Amino acid sequence: MPLADTPLLPALLTAVEAVATIAFAASGLLEAARKRLDAVGVCMVTGLAAFGGGTLRDVLLDRRPFFWVEHAGWLWALLALAAAAMAFMRARHFAPTARAMQWPDALGLGLFAAGGTLVALEQGMPAIVAVLMGVVTATFGGVLRDIVCNEIPSAFSDHRPYALCAFAGGWVVVGGYALAMPHPLAIGAGAAVTSALRVAALWTGWELPRWSPGGGER
Amino acid sequence: MPLADTPLLPALLTAVEAVATIAFAASGLLEAARKRLDAVGVCMVTGLAAFGGGTLRDVLLDRRPFFWVEHAGWLWALLALAAAAMAFMRARHFAPTARAMQWPDALGLGLFAAGGTLVALEQGMPAIVAVLMGVVTATFGGVLRDIVCNEIPSAFSDHRPYALCAFAGGWVVVGGYALAMPHPLAIGAGAAVTSALRVAALWTGWELPRWSPGGGER
Amino acid sequence: MPLADTPLLPALLTAVEAVATIAFAASGLLEAARKRLDAVGVCMVTGLAAFGGGTLRDVLLDRRPFFWVEHAGWLWALLALAAAAMAFMRARHFAPTARAMQWPDALGLGLFAAGGTLVALEQGMPAIVAVLMGVVTATFGGVLRDIVCNEIPSAFSDHRPYALCAFAGGWVVVGGYALAMPHPLAIGAGAAVTSALRVAALWTGWELPRWSPGGGER
Repeated sequence: MPLADTPLLPALLTAVEAVATIAFAASGLLEAARKRLDAVGVCMVTGLAAFGGGTLRDVLLDRRPFFWVEHAGWLWALLALAAAAMAFMRARHFAPTARAMQWPDALGLGLFAAGGTLVALEQGMPAIVAVLMGVVTATFGGVLRDIVCNEIPSAFSDHRPYALCAFAGGWVVVGGYALAMPHPLAIGAGAAVTSALRVAALWTGWELPRWSPGGGER
Repeated sequence: MPLADTPLLPALLTAVEAVATIAFAASGLLEAARKRLDAVGVCMVTGLAAFGGGTLRDVLLDRRPFFWVEHAGWLWALLALAAAAMAFMRARHFAPTARAMQWPDALGLGLFAAGGTLVALEQGMPAIVAVLMGVVTATFGGVLRDIVCNEIPSAFSDHRPYALCAFAGGWVVVGGYALAMPHPLAIGAGAAVTSALRVAALWTGWELPRWSPGGGER
Repeated sequence: MPLADTPLLPALLTAVEAVATIAFAASGLLEAARKRLDAVGVCMVTGLAAFGGGTLRDVLLDRRPFFWVEHAGWLWALLALAAAAMAFMRARHFAPTARAMQWPDALGLGLFAAGGTLVALEQGMPAIVAVLMGVVTATFGGVLRDIVCNEIPSAFSDHRPYALCAFAGGWVVVGGYALAMPHPLAIGAGAAVTSALRVAALWTGWELPRWSPGGGER
């Protein structure tokens, strides 16, 4: 992840990153359970939800090593998380867990979108591409999770602002970068905007405008 | 895209490329609308349909920068296209638009297949791999569009010649390249063969032979 | 594939590899037939099942050339296999073929998991990542086959040990590599463990433990 070598607040950032990664992983865990995947599928979808977005960004930007190669301990942590969930978690815990995870997920959305945008800017990408890479980092773990689970990605279809919050926060990072802000400040500002927008959307129940109510096939 | 630095007819090629890209994008736009995706999904699937094939080819061939990084203005153009469609397009426009787009789509099929084949040949790929890369360039935008929309890819299942036309035209490019033809001529010949085959298939309603009518699960 | 330059038993290994690749390809062929894909889809899904896992591993590890670029004759062989199947295979052959292919498939599972793990170790990957790369090599051809055919991957959902056998065998390779065993020996040991576990699982009908019978959505 892009924040490893920033000079400010590294411990706080690491903690936020860990909480957010677990929230992303939990979204995969719950979806895998709902789809009644087996133990292998649960571990794979958990890992895909947690690391798929950053990995896809790094493949597109041709960057190596991946986060989960550099910090391979995270793979063990996710295996342990999946094993613990399969041992102790019951169906009646699923919905409350999903609700509780919305808040750390919003943190992760902001942090990963802002971090992904900055990584792309540092590789010399144009602003719109960098913002798109931030969106990919923050949302494509969930997109890949849904594709593997044979669902239309909820980030593309639930009419709740999610990727859009990442998009907005990405432009804050672009602005901060253009103004030569220190990187942690630019990331913090972008992450704050994204997370605040997401929390506001969750609180207010805001929905994206709908297209063409008279059409479509279902 | 591979044609950027060819010496002949660059303006014409650019125009054809733009028209074809818009046709590919429109296929994503219409599929996203049929599946009732939200605004984010519409933009994502539109972009995937337009650029997914060339991007996958470049990931496989380890080429950078992608077309949409080098020409990032296209990302804005697609956002504008999606926004305009969501503002002004109604369900009754969908079927006529899909029919009208068949013809520029056939142009794009030829141009992108031929261009993709030549790109792979120039990277020293064997002929069969180069032709396959042409097919990927021309058809995998649609394949990824259908996978994200939770459909079996129509290029693999509708029994209409589509990828097959790209395959045939790719061999024309291979032949022209082996004969040391100028690149624009080889691309033009391959694109013409592919597009002509596709148009002929559309006109005649030709279908691929069916396999094992007594079998299958549905 | 990673075994091309090992000094021992190259002819035997090549034969095993060929048999296993055909078994993987057959799984794609049968799935494509069950889904009634057209000729293009049959060829594509056959190739994806055979080479998708190794290709994804190489994209993640940033290795080139792919197996099917270095040995492009295999692409012709798969086209011929698909054509022969479409010409001569009837629906009543599907189930017996699928059963007969379980045994060479178990060979391929072992060989590709062990080979993929060693390739990753030689690129300096941590042990857990290398084992995961072995699992990806051996199982993601089938995962991609199922995603394209619009199914939840059977490797993630059928509760039969498949990827788990590859995971176990991968650790044998890691152990052999750490002990500086000759590579063919390490691969052979890992492949033998994986294949033996898979055959044992097939024979005994062993199933992975199920999670949370009281929950899930279907």
